[in-house]
Amino acid sequence: MNTVVNLKEKLAKLNEHWSPRVVGEFDGNYAKIAKLKGTFTWHKHDDEDELFLVISGTLVIEIENHPSVTLNEGELYIVPKGVMHNPIAEKECHVLVIEKKSTQHTGDTKIEKTRSIEDQLKPI
Amino acid sequence: MNTVVNLKEKLAKLNEHWSPRVVGEFDGNYAKIAKLKGTFTWHKHDDEDELFLVISGTLVIEIENHPSVTLNEGELYIVPKGVMHNPIAEKECHVLVIEKKSTQHTGDTKIEKTRSIEDQLKPI
Repeated sequence: MNTVVNLKEKLAKLNEHWSPRVVGEFDGNYAKIAKLKGTFTWHKHDDEDELFLVISGTLVIEIENHPSVTLNEGELYIVPKGVMHNPIAEKECHVLVIEKKSTQHTGDTKIEKTRSIEDQLKPI
Repeated sequence: MNTVVNLKEKLAKLNEHWSPRVVGEFDGNYAKIAKLKGTFTWHKHDDEDELFLVISGTLVIEIENHPSVTLNEGELYIVPKGVMHNPIAEKECHVLVIEKKSTQHTGDTKIEKTRSIEDQLKPI
């Protein structure tokens, strides 16, 4: 049976920025926590929508051909599949991300920050 | 393009208990908000897992053949498909629920509290 996940307790154990960790799975999706700080990278997920919920702090998501969106604590946004986007957190920001298991961290871009699904599945 | 959803602002507009409203969709799933108070009903979803995240208050989920789980603010739990469960909120509790679009509110049980998908899709 599944266990209760306290998001802030899990986040407190996460020492690295831009390094999501899986905290739950359901129906082909992962629920992940991440700490974000600075600028990530422009990328897209051709086949996956991506739900962001800000747990603390502020997240700006730059979106191609669209005004940036700003998410504060308790705000949710879904980046549609195929849309180039770039998350930016001026100060440290904590998020819950929900997306299909197939979702690659930086889409079809590979950079130093890119984390494999195996990395993201390390217990926390 | 999608819009930013402030969960607390949406919840403030919801006047009815046990009446989920869809606030986002992604990859065949709905993100729903709900206000819970009292005891719901025992039911199961044969083909759908169900993710609960408590936004405020405390939610107890009774689970067949398993100790109840208690979720406080910021805590997440996934009820596996096929598992009989019964949500209980002694005091009003606010939740985010994420589940496949096919998920019926009370599973294969129909009671007075049951809300159709159409009801849940009413804009809020």
